[in-house]
Amino acid sequence: TSRGGPRLPRGEVVVGDGSFLITLEKRGFVKAGLWTPEAVMEHPSAVRQLHMEFLRAGANVLQTFTFSATEDNMESKWEGVNAAACDLAKEVAEEGGALVAGSICQTSMYKYHKDEARIKNLFRLQLEVFIRKNVDFLIAEYFEFVEEAVWAVEVLKEVGKPVAVTMCIGPEGDMHDVTPGECAVKLVKAGADIVGVNCRFGPQTSLQTMKQMKEGLAAVGLDAHLMVQSLGFHTPDCGKGGFVDLPEYPFGLEPRVATRWDIQKYAREAYNLGVRYIGGCCGFEPYHIRAIAEELAPERGFLPPASEKHGIWGSGLDMHTKPWIRARARREYWENLLPASGRPFCPALSKPDA
Amino acid sequence: TSRGGPRLPRGEVVVGDGSFLITLEKRGFVKAGLWTPEAVMEHPSAVRQLHMEFLRAGANVLQTFTFSATEDNMESKWEGVNAAACDLAKEVAEEGGALVAGSICQTSMYKYHKDEARIKNLFRLQLEVFIRKNVDFLIAEYFEFVEEAVWAVEVLKEVGKPVAVTMCIGPEGDMHDVTPGECAVKLVKAGADIVGVNCRFGPQTSLQTMKQMKEGLAAVGLDAHLMVQSLGFHTPDCGKGGFVDLPEYPFGLEPRVATRWDIQKYAREAYNLGVRYIGGCCGFEPYHIRAIAEELAPERGFLPPASEKHGIWGSGLDMHTKPWIRARARREYWENLLPASGRPFCPALSKPDA
Amino acid sequence: TSRGGPRLPRGEVVVGDGSFLITLEKRGFVKAGLWTPEAVMEHPSAVRQLHMEFLRAGANVLQTFTFSATEDNMESKWEGVNAAACDLAKEVAEEGGALVAGSICQTSMYKYHKDEARIKNLFRLQLEVFIRKNVDFLIAEYFEFVEEAVWAVEVLKEVGKPVAVTMCIGPEGDMHDVTPGECAVKLVKAGADIVGVNCRFGPQTSLQTMKQMKEGLAAVGLDAHLMVQSLGFHTPDCGKGGFVDLPEYPFGLEPRVATRWDIQKYAREAYNLGVRYIGGCCGFEPYHIRAIAEELAPERGFLPPASEKHGIWGSGLDMHTKPWIRARARREYWENLLPASGRPFCPALSKPDA
Amino acid sequence: TSRGGPRLPRGEVVVGDGSFLITLEKRGFVKAGLWTPEAVMEHPSAVRQLHMEFLRAGANVLQTFTFSATEDNMESKWEGVNAAACDLAKEVAEEGGALVAGSICQTSMYKYHKDEARIKNLFRLQLEVFIRKNVDFLIAEYFEFVEEAVWAVEVLKEVGKPVAVTMCIGPEGDMHDVTPGECAVKLVKAGADIVGVNCRFGPQTSLQTMKQMKEGLAAVGLDAHLMVQSLGFHTPDCGKGGFVDLPEYPFGLEPRVATRWDIQKYAREAYNLGVRYIGGCCGFEPYHIRAIAEELAPERGFLPPASEKHGIWGSGLDMHTKPWIRARARREYWENLLPASGRPFCPALSKPDA
Repeated sequence: TSRGGPRLPRGEVVVGDGSFLITLEKRGFVKAGLWTPEAVMEHPSAVRQLHMEFLRAGANVLQTFTFSATEDNMESKWEGVNAAACDLAKEVAEEGGALVAGSICQTSMYKYHKDEARIKNLFRLQLEVFIRKNVDFLIAEYFEFVEEAVWAVEVLKEVGKPVAVTMCIGPEGDMHDVTPGECAVKLVKAGADIVGVNCRFGPQTSLQTMKQMKEGLAAVGLDAHLMVQSLGFHTPDCGKGGFVDLPEYPFGLEPRVATRWDIQKYAREAYNLGVRYIGGCCGFEPYHIRAIAEELAPERGFLPPASEKHGIWGSGLDMHTKPWIRARARREYWENLLPASGRPFCPALSKPDA
Repeated sequence: TSRGGPRLPRGEVVVGDGSFLITLEKRGFVKAGLWTPEAVMEHPSAVRQLHMEFLRAGANVLQTFTFSATEDNMESKWEGVNAAACDLAKEVAEEGGALVAGSICQTSMYKYHKDEARIKNLFRLQLEVFIRKNVDFLIAEYFEFVEEAVWAVEVLKEVGKPVAVTMCIGPEGDMHDVTPGECAVKLVKAGADIVGVNCRFGPQTSLQTMKQMKEGLAAVGLDAHLMVQSLGFHTPDCGKGGFVDLPEYPFGLEPRVATRWDIQKYAREAYNLGVRYIGGCCGFEPYHIRAIAEELAPERGFLPPASEKHGIWGSGLDMHTKPWIRARARREYWENLLPASGRPFCPALSKPDA
Repeated sequence: TSRGGPRLPRGEVVVGDGSFLITLEKRGFVKAGLWTPEAVMEHPSAVRQLHMEFLRAGANVLQTFTFSATEDNMESKWEGVNAAACDLAKEVAEEGGALVAGSICQTSMYKYHKDEARIKNLFRLQLEVFIRKNVDFLIAEYFEFVEEAVWAVEVLKEVGKPVAVTMCIGPEGDMHDVTPGECAVKLVKAGADIVGVNCRFGPQTSLQTMKQMKEGLAAVGLDAHLMVQSLGFHTPDCGKGGFVDLPEYPFGLEPRVATRWDIQKYAREAYNLGVRYIGGCCGFEPYHIRAIAEELAPERGFLPPASEKHGIWGSGLDMHTKPWIRARARREYWENLLPASGRPFCPALSKPDA
Repeated sequence: TSRGGPRLPRGEVVVGDGSFLITLEKRGFVKAGLWTPEAVMEHPSAVRQLHMEFLRAGANVLQTFTFSATEDNMESKWEGVNAAACDLAKEVAEEGGALVAGSICQTSMYKYHKDEARIKNLFRLQLEVFIRKNVDFLIAEYFEFVEEAVWAVEVLKEVGKPVAVTMCIGPEGDMHDVTPGECAVKLVKAGADIVGVNCRFGPQTSLQTMKQMKEGLAAVGLDAHLMVQSLGFHTPDCGKGGFVDLPEYPFGLEPRVATRWDIQKYAREAYNLGVRYIGGCCGFEPYHIRAIAEELAPERGFLPPASEKHGIWGSGLDMHTKPWIRARARREYWENLLPASGRPFCPALSKPDA
């Protein structure tokens, strides 16, 4: 059996990793607009460093940085990118006993022609690299349409490894108006071991979607492991299309970045909802992953390595020379803080462009 | 002559680097509350990576990560930390022709006993390492009291290298109510080649302080190079003590993070004010430094390496499939955007705790 | 036939009046907490003045100021209050050809014991005064429970005059979870000629409730005139209990007061939804009623008297000496203005207390 | 001696009245843009009612509604308007033992040609009516230029009645950059018995200006009674020109309206600053005046009549059936409330147009 298989069935909490595209864009290695992972070949040390940071923050799983790394997006580079991405993730994962998940996402093709055979072939090509590199399990993520997600699951299931699948949808469902509950049912029926959502919506909104997925599965008597990897941005004002339709996307999202305390709340609520694979997507920095690991330390039985550099609930401030800063070294302070934006001319919410 | 000396006198724009403590805290390598740079020994690859990112973003200067690296804060580790920090900065700087600045900051001692001899000795010990490692020039930064900053300048001037000095003050002046203009005069009279501010206040507030420094120097007929390295956080609501007194410090500052467009504005306004050494302090990520370099590319004559992964003014969005996202690929859009916080229960401003 | 009967059936727009309790509280004649209308006896000129202002603003209907004027709330004063209120409304209405509506509301008794006979008797006592004073038609308003509203309609229908009924509910329905659609159906079946909502929720929220009422009636093939009299306060953050549960109720609601432009939008949207009786409740000042009358002037064929003191869409500013104020004398300006709160330490939304 | 003379010298607190133009605009009797007081002839009962409300709220002084009632603004109507305004104010004042203040303001002429003789003549014409009607004292208010205010004082002093004078300036001083302190000195030297500010700036900003006036007088050893009549709107974002330059002026100011608690704070701070004549200008409704009278009841020794309809610090809520509303019946609750705007798409502050 693969190393990835047994964990969730044993009831463990799995902490996912965080943001690659948006984080590496800010570090200078990914181009916004393209959003492709050629950095694995061009700047491997930058990618390795980020894997290492997520591992250190407590991630059990390192996803290969292979988002959009298909022939339709990257031409002939695709194969080298997939191989290099696997090597980087594996190299780091081995230092910390983490699992490596080979990761695919929706194609750019589906919107224009729903050619099942061609699309499945794109998925299969990436899968072949993942198998050659012997990843532990597989993730199909960021699907706007459940039909394409089902195709992805069908392909990934061909090789006998556990398969997780996450859609980038909100409570209103997929782009063809399939509800989150129905999406979950279709995906489990297609063979997915783990289902959930990633990206496009903030922590609180994503948990609402997960609640619907859970209820949809329960309504038809199906069971599956649940997984959530939300944005690291607050998006209470999103429409169906998620954060890409907000006027701030992608270069003005800063005021929406979640604090570590927001993420501890998210982790606890996800856990209480029954979700056991909890990670992040765009905007999730290493300290956000650490926040998940710290919140769920009682359940996991350990703190992550990066907590050696973090006082729980702000306790690192307890020796500060200013008494009013020392007074912040406690849970109640940070749990109740409503942080100001420092932007008096900006509103709280935006109207999505679509 | 050192490599550091001639640039500013030749009229060049110098782009500084950005945030180490806050950025590496989020990556998991620095402990908030302590704010010491032991990562140079414990996690050198993480520090090297960040130097590399700033270099790639367009920084001319890499500062040694030696903030607070004195015996009073780090005990016997101090010497190894200073040496390792120099090695890391030099190693990266050589790849890109950047200068290395040995960096010291205020002591924790001054507040309690203004023992000039002891304090100068702490500075001199760090300086000896910098000289042994042959850094290009010297920066004394983050001084709340101009008296201590003058002592720092006096020590650093002993070795004949160019000396920059920045105070962490706002428009209200230092903690003894010395105005920014008077501070600048005292520091230039003490021998500083470059004067300015770093940290504690956001971009717009720091420029107000710089304006006062400039006017103070002009009023007495003094001349000096000007330097600004502001926070990457907006702090219009700060009191005299700066951002540490805001209730959000240090774990709830996310909504205040500047966008790249805010920083382009800051760079242009700093330049127009006559400041020629422009960088950042806490909260300045690599993409913020790139924003300075892009804004001042016409003056410098080149774009930084990281701009290969960045479409100027959002132009990387011009091929997006959604027309309303393509419509964001232009300067007017981002210059006028007032980004929402996504936090409807949070206010725009806070009252400082002190 | 009564004068009140024929208007709506002829397809006319009826403009209701506005706020009495909250407005007269601010003028010093009503006590918050009690919210009873003894001002009709104690300060008749103040009540007469407010009736006059609403008439002048374009109201077709003047409601008697008899809210809560029952024996359980006002003891023996109730009868004199009802009689005086009728006299005041009639006296003013006659000056402008408006209708007088005798108005009752929910009892304080229903929550504790649902004694249909006793409650109906309270309604009947008020009705007897209205009949004696020969009001034009009857309004039963501010019902949290549809069951009690049905009782009110049943009593009011006994005398052969047209009956309107409005509930103080939002999109989530009444306090027993009866949906707005079901409420509307029950009320029409009980004999109401006009159904809708008043109070407790802001303009936009109230229109959502009206949409549900309309759809609920259509679904069972029923027809009725529709009526909306929303709050003059924005309440996007209300829970099921409406604005009384917001922390700002009742003495901190100022930042939520609608502008005249907000109300023009509300009037237009209500009209487009098919609502033909459009007025206001708590927070609706005379100028808000004028805004309804101005927005619907094309449909009604005339402007109200108070428009002699109002330039449509800000046109009164067109002679201002400052050009930037003159530039505000146009519809596009006011329609698109997002007014600032002037309160940098306050949030956009609140969490209801219940 | 006139009745007006002795009060302030005896150390009494004088409570002024509030807003006429803006308040009567909302009631339908004044036209925005013109801002002239013809309502005293056209709708005397509306004006009488508002005087009565301010009297009842605790005002010691009723100002004649003669703002801009000069020949240059109102042609031949000016004289009738001044006479009618005096009659209305006196009629109401007599019912409550209040003083009547004849009120003049800056001319529209001064900006174009500073013809002292012509301007003084306009003032003198109004003064003649006031003397004929035997008002108690005189107020010259709303002056942007201290030079014109001095002319007004010089004219008003001709008749031997006490003279108050208020400028509509903020902390930056008058339109010719005369500081508030210098303005106060010039006005007292011209003979004013009472000096201060009215209108154009919100409560907090106006108190800053008063502080400067007080210090300016003290610096030259002058003494005068101080008076403040601020806006009822918060304007922390105003420039030198005050609220008329804000984009919300005059039809989108609702979110800025002060709560009664804001005004209690203003009254207390004004009192603590040594101001003894405390009232309001545009936006001050009767309940705001009552808030001044309630805050200063300990000093005055009595509550105003309108307090019979007001529970101090929300105590009227103490019998509410919902416990969370009862919990609001206390001072701490309302003093600390930060009221939400209910406007998630609107910012906290605006940039003035000029």
